[in-house]
Amino acid sequence: MLEPNSPELKSFIPVSSDSDFPIQNLPYGVFTKKNLGGDKQIGVAIGDQVLNISELEREGLLRLKDMAFQAPDLNTFIELGESQWKLARKQISLLLREDNPKLRDHKDLQLRCLSPQSEVLMHLPVEIGDYTDFYSSKEHASNVGSMFRDKNNPLLPNWLHLPVGYHGRASSVVVGGTDIFRPKGQIMPPEAEKPILSACKRLDYELEMAYFIGKQNKLGQRVPVETAESHVFGLVLMNDWSARDIQKWEYQPLGPFTSKSFATSVSPWVVPLEALKPFAVKGVVQEPEPLEYLRHSENVCAHYDINLEVYLRNQGGLEQRLSSGNSKGLYWSMAQQIAHHTMTGCNLQVGDLMASGTVSGSEASERGCLLELTWGGQQPIEFGNEQRTFLEDGDTVVIKGWCQGKGYRIGFGDLSGTILPAQD
Amino acid sequence: MLEPNSPELKSFIPVSSDSDFPIQNLPYGVFTKKNLGGDKQIGVAIGDQVLNISELEREGLLRLKDMAFQAPDLNTFIELGESQWKLARKQISLLLREDNPKLRDHKDLQLRCLSPQSEVLMHLPVEIGDYTDFYSSKEHASNVGSMFRDKNNPLLPNWLHLPVGYHGRASSVVVGGTDIFRPKGQIMPPEAEKPILSACKRLDYELEMAYFIGKQNKLGQRVPVETAESHVFGLVLMNDWSARDIQKWEYQPLGPFTSKSFATSVSPWVVPLEALKPFAVKGVVQEPEPLEYLRHSENVCAHYDINLEVYLRNQGGLEQRLSSGNSKGLYWSMAQQIAHHTMTGCNLQVGDLMASGTVSGSEASERGCLLELTWGGQQPIEFGNEQRTFLEDGDTVVIKGWCQGKGYRIGFGDLSGTILPAQD
Repeated sequence: MLEPNSPELKSFIPVSSDSDFPIQNLPYGVFTKKNLGGDKQIGVAIGDQVLNISELEREGLLRLKDMAFQAPDLNTFIELGESQWKLARKQISLLLREDNPKLRDHKDLQLRCLSPQSEVLMHLPVEIGDYTDFYSSKEHASNVGSMFRDKNNPLLPNWLHLPVGYHGRASSVVVGGTDIFRPKGQIMPPEAEKPILSACKRLDYELEMAYFIGKQNKLGQRVPVETAESHVFGLVLMNDWSARDIQKWEYQPLGPFTSKSFATSVSPWVVPLEALKPFAVKGVVQEPEPLEYLRHSENVCAHYDINLEVYLRNQGGLEQRLSSGNSKGLYWSMAQQIAHHTMTGCNLQVGDLMASGTVSGSEASERGCLLELTWGGQQPIEFGNEQRTFLEDGDTVVIKGWCQGKGYRIGFGDLSGTILPAQD
Repeated sequence: MLEPNSPELKSFIPVSSDSDFPIQNLPYGVFTKKNLGGDKQIGVAIGDQVLNISELEREGLLRLKDMAFQAPDLNTFIELGESQWKLARKQISLLLREDNPKLRDHKDLQLRCLSPQSEVLMHLPVEIGDYTDFYSSKEHASNVGSMFRDKNNPLLPNWLHLPVGYHGRASSVVVGGTDIFRPKGQIMPPEAEKPILSACKRLDYELEMAYFIGKQNKLGQRVPVETAESHVFGLVLMNDWSARDIQKWEYQPLGPFTSKSFATSVSPWVVPLEALKPFAVKGVVQEPEPLEYLRHSENVCAHYDINLEVYLRNQGGLEQRLSSGNSKGLYWSMAQQIAHHTMTGCNLQVGDLMASGTVSGSEASERGCLLELTWGGQQPIEFGNEQRTFLEDGDTVVIKGWCQGKGYRIGFGDLSGTILPAQD
């Protein structure tokens, strides 16, 4: 029998070769029907459709422990563990195959179980416990260090030895598509003697990859780097909205706080790590070699070849690509992040969100935020007849990400967010 | 009728004048019976007893919405809002009064509802969503700034203008009494060229006050400083265990991470803000005057006169007071912290934990952690025949806190934690 990752598999549901959601992907999300509302349902994206797997479970066509797809989020399912993830993936893949008549020839069932993605409203897929944001792109850390500290010595001494990270705010993580109000906050204007309260004037996005923890470790229990990836359930795209002027004033000495905690967007579809496995690659050579607890065996592929793009669209509909890049260039892998996070004994729990930090590449066209693209606002971007240093009201940021297979792609769907004016 | 805060009130349960738990306090906690186990019960401390209010609710002697005391934590009750908090407090106070025969003369009921505190096991009282740690003691920030930055200019420029804070790790918050394993982590030894993996050699406590959020604000909705205190349900003592050597190496530029996230202890009894209201005092004069969104009206009492003490006990039973202080000297109030936290739109949720940061005073005897007491380890403390710079295996730290009324005190009970050797 063909495995769910087999490139040969085809679904009876039409999927174009540039769709993010072929039968090899099967990402999970939570949705309600637009206009109809009702209880949240768990769905899987296939082509331009959503397959309602909560309904399939009620129909007895999916059989997992605990009726896990009747929950309003993915946590119950994720708690079941890896063997049930694999089982669910196999069952769903089988139901969608072109050579399986079970759903294909059952039009009544299709009516109940399939909806165009355009007709559903997506919700936050996971109830997030804690959220940690790393800082794992060497190019991003170097660019920021060059701008704000020392051009010739941009990385702080610890950076090459451990995956720097910090705790973020979980409550304000929102699903892609949610509008983002421009924050107001405390700012110290250049040359001023006193800070002011002001709407943010340097509002930025940050292109990030993120993942949900699928297996807990208990308090005091370390996760070895060798097995750390088995603690990952799946990945999403992330936009870590950042108020640069508020951040600059508040962040010393304890790190970003209100400049980030007003909103963080994640894409609605969680791509299982399993679906990304064919796109695992070796990471960059780490020099100096990290301490043993962070060291990958020589041939381990713990990075993922995910193409990334950021687009900016203004209120008039003008759209332009701001950058493109790839997450495979991240210096620290997810496994290294988890091994480090748990080294002192911190417990990670199912549903925790971990993010990469801004993904930038070595080329100017690969910079993952406006702060870098405009070099602190000094080099505005041409945008149609306009210029941009930072985001303006009405701007929409769209992040795309996908792995390119032969004739198909494993994609994440669009992660978008539109800036609304500051509220009084 | 006498209000629950009336100093005249007396309970039929004997309460000594130096007990933390007179009838005017009525703090909430979650417990199970030692040896017996069973479902978690919600209790109220009175003298040296625990009153099982889950049982009283089942008996029909407490009447609140939603049978809130049948939950395994306080969140359901807290969600009910301030009017139900007041109602519960009135009902519990009435049941415990010496002039009310209902429970006093009902020995069977007492057998089911009262247990000595020595016979119960306390659990984390609240399911914590997010946890934020502020840095609101000017003396602490100044001491740390003097040690690590500039003796003549110890405060960073933002400190007097906003309550500096950062996101902490919620999953590793544990209830007082939980043993703490010495963490292992990455350290850069002085003069070394490369970091090492090592058991922490500079393990410290931090004396803090903390509070649980009782009323949510929605994403994008700011909480004005004038009404911010109504978002506080109650207070606990906190010990923010800190691995100073790991912290020193990891914290730049994003703040403390694994050096704190291995464990944070909170005291098991949540003292309702209502019980602390008689001890509200005006804060220190803030100069420069903060921006309007952080400004208290002139006569507002938004600080609390809570005496604090820290004791160290070694394995041999030798016990010594390390410091004493008072939380009324904190520069930023809880209301100011909440107003600032929500200014950019961050949503606080019921059960979120907010902490003051280390509480230090102006005297050397009022320093709230060993880092300050030993001035970075340079001035060891005499401890019986021993010396201490940082915590050793087997050491127990005990934090006490109470408001002193006339003939009674509103106390928090002991918050203790013992250091166990690092695990391999």
